Amino acid sequence: MKAAVLREVNVPLEVEEVQVDAPGPREVLIRTGASGVCHSDLHYVEGSYSIPKPAILGHEAAGIVEAVGEQVYYLKPGDTVIMCLSVFCGHCEFCLRGQPVLCTRTDVVRGADQAPRLRQDGQAITQMAQLGSYAEQMLVHENACVKVREDVPMDRLALIGCGATTGIGAVLNTAQVEPGSTVCVVGCGGVGLNCIQGAALAGALRIIAVDTVETKLTMAREFGATDVIDASSGDVVEKIRDLTDDGVDYSFEAIGLKQTAEQCYQMLRPGGTATVIGMIPEGTMIEIDAGGFLRRERKLQGSSMGSNRFRTDMPRYVEFYLQGRLKLDELVSQHMKLEQINEAFADMKGGNVARSVILFD
Amino acid sequence: MKAAVLREVNVPLEVEEVQVDAPGPREVLIRTGASGVCHSDLHYVEGSYSIPKPAILGHEAAGIVEAVGEQVYYLKPGDTVIMCLSVFCGHCEFCLRGQPVLCTRTDVVRGADQAPRLRQDGQAITQMAQLGSYAEQMLVHENACVKVREDVPMDRLALIGCGATTGIGAVLNTAQVEPGSTVCVVGCGGVGLNCIQGAALAGALRIIAVDTVETKLTMAREFGATDVIDASSGDVVEKIRDLTDDGVDYSFEAIGLKQTAEQCYQMLRPGGTATVIGMIPEGTMIEIDAGGFLRRERKLQGSSMGSNRFRTDMPRYVEFYLQGRLKLDELVSQHMKLEQINEAFADMKGGNVARSVILFD
Repeated sequence: MKAAVLREVNVPLEVEEVQVDAPGPREVLIRTGASGVCHSDLHYVEGSYSIPKPAILGHEAAGIVEAVGEQVYYLKPGDTVIMCLSVFCGHCEFCLRGQPVLCTRTDVVRGADQAPRLRQDGQAITQMAQLGSYAEQMLVHENACVKVREDVPMDRLALIGCGATTGIGAVLNTAQVEPGSTVCVVGCGGVGLNCIQGAALAGALRIIAVDTVETKLTMAREFGATDVIDASSGDVVEKIRDLTDDGVDYSFEAIGLKQTAEQCYQMLRPGGTATVIGMIPEGTMIEIDAGGFLRRERKLQGSSMGSNRFRTDMPRYVEFYLQGRLKLDELVSQHMKLEQINEAFADMKGGNVARSVILFD
Repeated sequence: MKAAVLREVNVPLEVEEVQVDAPGPREVLIRTGASGVCHSDLHYVEGSYSIPKPAILGHEAAGIVEAVGEQVYYLKPGDTVIMCLSVFCGHCEFCLRGQPVLCTRTDVVRGADQAPRLRQDGQAITQMAQLGSYAEQMLVHENACVKVREDVPMDRLALIGCGATTGIGAVLNTAQVEPGSTVCVVGCGGVGLNCIQGAALAGALRIIAVDTVETKLTMAREFGATDVIDASSGDVVEKIRDLTDDGVDYSFEAIGLKQTAEQCYQMLRPGGTATVIGMIPEGTMIEIDAGGFLRRERKLQGSSMGSNRFRTDMPRYVEFYLQGRLKLDELVSQHMKLEQINEAFADMKGGNVARSVILFD
């Protein structure tokens, strides 16, 4: 099959031939239908996060089951699936208490001692997030799949795999925003827009969107923001205080920066909760004033993949979409071919596309 | 009446005559029965927190109602009451959603423009926390009182007013520790010991106590700690990792230091929650590694007065005590007279007493 292969940091991906093994007992071979081009992929291209190379990036994907291993009962060839950002074991403490994103994954992730499943002339190739969706096929554990209905376009399903799940899940699962709340979302890219529509779905009364790009703020309004703040001038926290009664109940950091994470904490009213979603590099120290704890009972927390319970939540998002309560169409800025992957990264860096989606034939 | 008056930072309190007004419409005059000597009082003596002077400190107290204003229906003379650390209005958004510790208190706190209620030769005297329990009498708003049963000694009731409420409430209300959890409490003074017994009450399976004073660790065991760590040697976070499966579910900071607050965050296992109770001075910046958010979904939050719903929680603590499920007797290290208040502060600084309690005749 063909796949876009990352060989070195900051070197354009090359579309090359890659050999895929037959599925092992609990593995599934997926024919990739669509793969979103997500900022997290770019982090690996640029080296701010690292991955053993050569590697196939891509993790926001959907496809059709082509073949299943002999122990797989959940899926059969022809099923439509959304890929999980994080394969879950289903039997560790975290999985069993509804936190599969924290799964210890001791036996569903291939160890370094196990035979590679993807190769090029004998050399092993890493699949990002155990997926690697910038490829015509994905060989994955069955627990990396969520079966969904078959009448939704692949590009929409792909978005549920990461951007939608991460943003909506942070609001519904991690923060558990309640009706009537005042919410602020800092960063109106793919994840931020999904936070905004998650907050609207949760019944938030006011949703304040913050970004520096005018077109993103316009999209934010379309996704449900009631107020927008252009962060390129003036103090964001001060503007939030002016707009609200002593701050917001919930804030969401959807960029991945120290400064915006700190702002999200500072803008909270008493009892408020700040949720950090953005990929802030490990080792970056967030500094917060301890005074906010005692006097204001502020909370600061992280959200990993929207605290998603994949097989419960993703089919629900599909239904919300079909009911017209979640926007996915508007998130797809453009369709591309696998060969245009480097172009898609360039457009993302340009900052004017919500999401490029690679479509496979 | 007699009261211990703070005139200047770091100057011993003097017991002097003070004039008290008659209760206003919603005010209550309390005959003080007992007042605990709490570390927070010492913060004001030493100037790390400030208060308009002259002032009467003391906020952990219980007493008997002596007289009530014409609009007070909740209480009558002779009732036994525990004082609330924080008078609540009962009609703001925070009060009405079960967070009276965050009450905006616009109309129950005497403003600077209102006539003083306590005076010395015409000069107004500040009551700490609207209470001022280092005095024979307290003139307070009725919403600073919680009526309780009359058959419990005053010194035990006084402790419920602050130390017990703050520690137990942080566990039961703020963090909501569930049965089977692994908990760590850093700092085994009055509040820390109450965290420990709160965790035991909540059904925590392992309770790890951290302190540098051997006698406090011994008391920690008596209050329910299953493991103790002497923090005076070695890396606390490393020791916690050795003792546990990748960290603790819940940690509590009960000292008020930047370093221990940061440790409480570092020692969390994935999905864990750190709760800061200690009075860390405003402006102190807590630094935490953002990597803990994305990979581990860690939470960090403040607890103010144990997120207490005073009139619900305090009578429950009294019942728990009478059922033998909360230790209060063991928290009282010594009884003193009001005239010995400076001695009580000296003993506290010495670090060997859990709690001195001032008894009034």
